[in-house]
Amino acid sequence: MKISIERGTLLKAVGQAQSVVERRNNIPILANVLIEAEGDTVSFRATDLDIEVVDKAPAQVERAGATTVSAVMLHEIVRKLPDGALVMLTDDGASGRLTVQAGRSNFALATLPREDFPVMASSEYTTSFTAPAAALRRLFDKSKFAISTEETRYYLNGVYMHVAEGETGPALRCVATDGHRLARIDAPLPAGAEGMPGVIVPRKTVGELRKLLDNDETEIAVSVSETKVRFATPAITLTSKVIDGTFPDYTRVIPTGNSRRLEVDATEFAQAVDRVATVSSERSRAVKLSLDEDRLILSVNAPDSGAAEEELAVAYGDERLEIGFNAKYLLEIASQVDRENAVFLFNSSGDPTLMREGNDASAVYVVMPMRV
Amino acid sequence: MKISIERGTLLKAVGQAQSVVERRNNIPILANVLIEAEGDTVSFRATDLDIEVVDKAPAQVERAGATTVSAVMLHEIVRKLPDGALVMLTDDGASGRLTVQAGRSNFALATLPREDFPVMASSEYTTSFTAPAAALRRLFDKSKFAISTEETRYYLNGVYMHVAEGETGPALRCVATDGHRLARIDAPLPAGAEGMPGVIVPRKTVGELRKLLDNDETEIAVSVSETKVRFATPAITLTSKVIDGTFPDYTRVIPTGNSRRLEVDATEFAQAVDRVATVSSERSRAVKLSLDEDRLILSVNAPDSGAAEEELAVAYGDERLEIGFNAKYLLEIASQVDRENAVFLFNSSGDPTLMREGNDASAVYVVMPMRV
Repeated sequence: MKISIERGTLLKAVGQAQSVVERRNNIPILANVLIEAEGDTVSFRATDLDIEVVDKAPAQVERAGATTVSAVMLHEIVRKLPDGALVMLTDDGASGRLTVQAGRSNFALATLPREDFPVMASSEYTTSFTAPAAALRRLFDKSKFAISTEETRYYLNGVYMHVAEGETGPALRCVATDGHRLARIDAPLPAGAEGMPGVIVPRKTVGELRKLLDNDETEIAVSVSETKVRFATPAITLTSKVIDGTFPDYTRVIPTGNSRRLEVDATEFAQAVDRVATVSSERSRAVKLSLDEDRLILSVNAPDSGAAEEELAVAYGDERLEIGFNAKYLLEIASQVDRENAVFLFNSSGDPTLMREGNDASAVYVVMPMRV
Repeated sequence: MKISIERGTLLKAVGQAQSVVERRNNIPILANVLIEAEGDTVSFRATDLDIEVVDKAPAQVERAGATTVSAVMLHEIVRKLPDGALVMLTDDGASGRLTVQAGRSNFALATLPREDFPVMASSEYTTSFTAPAAALRRLFDKSKFAISTEETRYYLNGVYMHVAEGETGPALRCVATDGHRLARIDAPLPAGAEGMPGVIVPRKTVGELRKLLDNDETEIAVSVSETKVRFATPAITLTSKVIDGTFPDYTRVIPTGNSRRLEVDATEFAQAVDRVATVSSERSRAVKLSLDEDRLILSVNAPDSGAAEEELAVAYGDERLEIGFNAKYLLEIASQVDRENAVFLFNSSGDPTLMREGNDASAVYVVMPMRV
């Protein structure tokens, strides 16, 4: 293999690939990136056996070939090379070294045979469709905070992506929950997604996927099978196993009869919650909401350290209500509201509370109360 | 106590004070800041029993008084208040609570009696002088990287500030070393500093002191005794115990006869060292310098991961020399050079090497070689 590639292009491609590599692993080749050069393209492939990323970049390929080197080391070297440098990657196939050359810098990196690199088996995808990056970004960004970190509830360690009947028609829906809070986000169902099997996309995949979704203009090709999901841009293909489990029936958790309606500026609300929570002890972090006619009092009482109270002018027309929540959960759902006021729908102080942006039912959040 | 103070002023004063508070400590009152209001000033005092910071700020004092509250919690609350808010601090002396009120936010923080707060005993300072903030900043910024972290060599856990005969006359000198490298920085001796006892300023004090030195125009009042050192601006007074030990005779370590002279652009050199060090194993990180007529080759050979080599055009007129150094040490001393080229003076591959900025002898660095 012998290729020339611009440093910025190389940095981007290796950067995306190396981020899936686990820093600690017992299988040496999993620390490596597989470099494959052919035609006028070089591809960088990395995997942790659950996720595989392939990043293609244009390069001048003088001699086709393939090898594997340490992903982190290659990335570090390229990062430290001066901007605009032309980088030559050469592998003679015999020395067990990949030469990286740029300007007066020369590196010889230990390689491992390409044959040993575990390429993810391709899958029979039952459903394929394209979706705008912006739509997928919204689906995952607004749901991922609710992913559970409890390893024993492994079926909650991801975002459940599936087809559902939304308020305004068929929807591509993402749901995540950890039992304390839940997020349910809908997007219009893309053509071709109708028969898609529901899949639980693991937390790490959601994080890697995010890097494909920065550009609003990109169309993402999505392929789904019972066991795998694939997201692809023209340059990057991210393939991931999905969580082998059944996502619980979340619909029972979403209250439908909550009638007490509070409308509040989401930013003001979040700042006030953050302030009053300062005095609470690390563990409980309970914030009490006391609602009365167009008035909300947020309060925290922590016997050891003190007390805090803050009043907000809100829209509320129902009878008096006192209800407690974990401050962290309140902050997280309030920070999902971009444009409009946050609307909370309460039932009683013991029942789950629903939150949405204004009257938009395409993003709803449920949070369980706490006794205060 | 009852005072009103602008949020920004309060944030700055509490921020400086709370940073000396140790996050984990067994004596509850050490987590607190002592607030004292009198005249038209409020002062915030915090201590870890070794360092004490007092920060004064203008305030409208309606009722003089004093109390103590959690430094971290007060700082967090003030940080989260909106910019420009007027903050009222009220303590009735009986309830055991300090009320913090701003806009519609109300906090009641647990207090501890001011009598229990350990105020550092004042010392008989034998020497007092003033020095420009910029001069002190240079002395400590350029020496602190060499402070030892070995607890058993406690007398190296700080910067040795003393009076010395510099190359161009009497100097205020700061020296730090960990046995592998050494920094010796001189500034013109301020009037009044002549008889100053040499003191070892602890690492944490050096860090806290840095915050007083941001403004070039500030004159810092320095007071020194055998056991304490004090740095003061009109608003902030930082008092610290000094390390009770004898700083070793560092002069013997600084080579005087090194005759092989290398001159190199410090930035180019640092970037090249950083690049070649990428392939070295975490532990040794040895970089080899091979010097020949106007040519420097930096190289690293790490059997497990690979090799790296980079050539630099330099000014060097002596005979061939090969010498190895810890990459981290080379990077640290190269990054001390601001304006001029770095000048290295070598003897042999087994002897300490000297580095300075151009021909400026007011900042010299010594680094021990490594076998490569």
